[in-house]
Amino acid sequence: MPDEVRGKALVAQSGGPTAVINASACGVIQEAQRCQQITGILGANNGIMGVLEEDLFDLAAESAETIAGLLSTPSAAIGSCRYKLGQLQSDRGKYERLLDVFRAHDVRWFFYIGGNDSMDTADKVNRLARELNYELRVLGVPKTIDNDLTCTDHCPGYGSVAKFLATATMEAGRDTEAMHTFDAVTIMEAMGRNTGWIAAACGLAQRSAEDAPHLVYVPEIPFVREQFLNDLAGVLDRGKGACVVVSEGLKDASGQYLKAEQGEFGADRFGHKQLGGVAEYLKELVEQKLHVKCRFNKLGTCQRNAIHFASQTDSSEAYRCGQEAVRQAVKGVTGMMVTLQRVRQHPYQCEFGLAPLAEVANGVKYLPREFMNEAGNHITQAMREYVQPLIQGEVPLRMGADGLPLFVRFQRRAVPQRLPRWKAG
Amino acid sequence: MPDEVRGKALVAQSGGPTAVINASACGVIQEAQRCQQITGILGANNGIMGVLEEDLFDLAAESAETIAGLLSTPSAAIGSCRYKLGQLQSDRGKYERLLDVFRAHDVRWFFYIGGNDSMDTADKVNRLARELNYELRVLGVPKTIDNDLTCTDHCPGYGSVAKFLATATMEAGRDTEAMHTFDAVTIMEAMGRNTGWIAAACGLAQRSAEDAPHLVYVPEIPFVREQFLNDLAGVLDRGKGACVVVSEGLKDASGQYLKAEQGEFGADRFGHKQLGGVAEYLKELVEQKLHVKCRFNKLGTCQRNAIHFASQTDSSEAYRCGQEAVRQAVKGVTGMMVTLQRVRQHPYQCEFGLAPLAEVANGVKYLPREFMNEAGNHITQAMREYVQPLIQGEVPLRMGADGLPLFVRFQRRAVPQRLPRWKAG
Repeated sequence: MPDEVRGKALVAQSGGPTAVINASACGVIQEAQRCQQITGILGANNGIMGVLEEDLFDLAAESAETIAGLLSTPSAAIGSCRYKLGQLQSDRGKYERLLDVFRAHDVRWFFYIGGNDSMDTADKVNRLARELNYELRVLGVPKTIDNDLTCTDHCPGYGSVAKFLATATMEAGRDTEAMHTFDAVTIMEAMGRNTGWIAAACGLAQRSAEDAPHLVYVPEIPFVREQFLNDLAGVLDRGKGACVVVSEGLKDASGQYLKAEQGEFGADRFGHKQLGGVAEYLKELVEQKLHVKCRFNKLGTCQRNAIHFASQTDSSEAYRCGQEAVRQAVKGVTGMMVTLQRVRQHPYQCEFGLAPLAEVANGVKYLPREFMNEAGNHITQAMREYVQPLIQGEVPLRMGADGLPLFVRFQRRAVPQRLPRWKAG
Repeated sequence: MPDEVRGKALVAQSGGPTAVINASACGVIQEAQRCQQITGILGANNGIMGVLEEDLFDLAAESAETIAGLLSTPSAAIGSCRYKLGQLQSDRGKYERLLDVFRAHDVRWFFYIGGNDSMDTADKVNRLARELNYELRVLGVPKTIDNDLTCTDHCPGYGSVAKFLATATMEAGRDTEAMHTFDAVTIMEAMGRNTGWIAAACGLAQRSAEDAPHLVYVPEIPFVREQFLNDLAGVLDRGKGACVVVSEGLKDASGQYLKAEQGEFGADRFGHKQLGGVAEYLKELVEQKLHVKCRFNKLGTCQRNAIHFASQTDSSEAYRCGQEAVRQAVKGVTGMMVTLQRVRQHPYQCEFGLAPLAEVANGVKYLPREFMNEAGNHITQAMREYVQPLIQGEVPLRMGADGLPLFVRFQRRAVPQRLPRWKAG
């Protein structure tokens, strides 16, 4: 029974960018262009905010070259935001507005590329559409460097941050090794919020005991300052310095963050603490307690956008997740997120699955305890086997004559607004 | 007249590592292996400290594969340190010790790969050798990411940090562009001590007004907080966020560093302030004064070791500088540093030159004022033309089955000590 739905597709990106979220957008767009039921493709400026504000642009007006260039362009080219809608009841006006915008532009396909907050929004949009009998197919495409979505083996974006940050750790480790008589300790700060997936991936860089990182700490295991200092002193006893990777979201035994970002904007509108500052905090602790010089490297947003050394496996999976979302939608599926299911390890093989948006929305996948050693200060073979297949190959770049990569940018031909201006309420 | 000197060569690296200092070492070693007058090749563990402590290893015992692998291995594989010897008179005991070690191991060729402090040491060793009638050829090989050596168009190491950090700036800039409704400002902190060469190189990433970085600040131009806030507010008025690159060594109009590193080890043994922290300081300033959220990225030692996206031009020049040092030494030259002289811009061509070590030792090459615009907040076309040829091409990597690069490490076969143990005095 063919699906009778016809209309435009709307593509939005949300949350923190990754090196390959644009690969997912590329997969959605190129596949949508092949579907007769999809009569147009719109992009939302600034993520879901662009839908609320009816601030849309015509993705179909972009050149094929620009669309293909998304594969080698980092960050969210369509636009992103951090804007969390509340409960369907309490924030009903906003959800109705989203549907009003969809209706005004004959949007029948909504592809939302994001993390669990985005899947929550997508789920509610989908439910309201059902309730109001508005024909809409809502498909989620997973995206997060944090790798903390449930129902999927891993998340597009993770393999690339893993590959880049593990490499940067190797490189910084060689610096410490050369300079250990002066700069004895280097601390690398990994993103990942409350999960240790990214920090743990850096552990892969240690192929032998001499290699960095010598110690890895993740938020899933309560951080004990004295134990850390003992661990570190033990490494320093080898006489070759030490390189340590820490997650930004480390917590002590009482569940308090070791260090959250200072300043006026210490928490975002989701109530999420802005993390970061752990490495600097530990640098000072090390200098005070162990009396050796310590450096810290905080790569910040550079780590999540490093297309210049991104994983080809990750990019390819990101693309195919986008493509799969369109294929499922035209089959009539809605209210689901595309997932990756690892069906074989040697050689690695992943297949697609589907998970209800509501299920993804409410879960967080933590690093399994068995991926960390008993002491809680480095990874195990199980973690190595998990992450290694995800960081294979390098995304090809287009290079400019100036020696730097070439990225694309949309021309953003605005879609004329058809509704009264929206006022946030 | 052939040079009659025969004996072993000693190679040492010094100061902060770079992505390509090992390429210079490779050039020295491979060329030295072709010279009959050079009867052996020793490496000094931990830079000049290894010579003082007679802590040497046999580079000739390393495999050809390991030596070739230096080209794709970042940081100082031989070993480095920060250890400054004083004046020839006041620190004469140390300089005599260096010559004692050379004599004990029949070292007649000393190749020192480093920055201006290293050239100062090399100069004094050379002078003392003359004074004591010890036949020694001392050649300096330039190395510094800071690009602040005089007498040379540029320094090996600079092109690679420039290419990587400019790329990271592009990538972080795309993050800000996507997330500007939430993270309005991103500040990137560039190394470079008291010169703005690295920060200015990042300016190259801005090909059009939309591109990052939107503002660039260097230590050569006194930093005025109010002007910075005005500049930034102007960029933010475009409504697309802002990405700013700042040098770690920014100073205010009174010549004070905006921010030097905190902690017990705020200054090194050279009396150099440990810089860093400027970006974080400015983040807080921006949030307080402009009331927008601001992030900072401090890539720290990752920027200077990024072999994974290093400039092939830089690597090749680094190699050839090492090679040239050996060629000059066997011709009888001593007391000189190899320099790079740009003889043509289109197409770019560099030739080697020589400069007296003493001259390099005492100079610092600042970023010319004309490389920055009148407002002092971005680069000019002259800077673009200067840096562009230096970042061409990418150094090929050897990749492991685990998806990460392969680096080499010396086996370090120790050279038996022949002298009484040295005691620092």
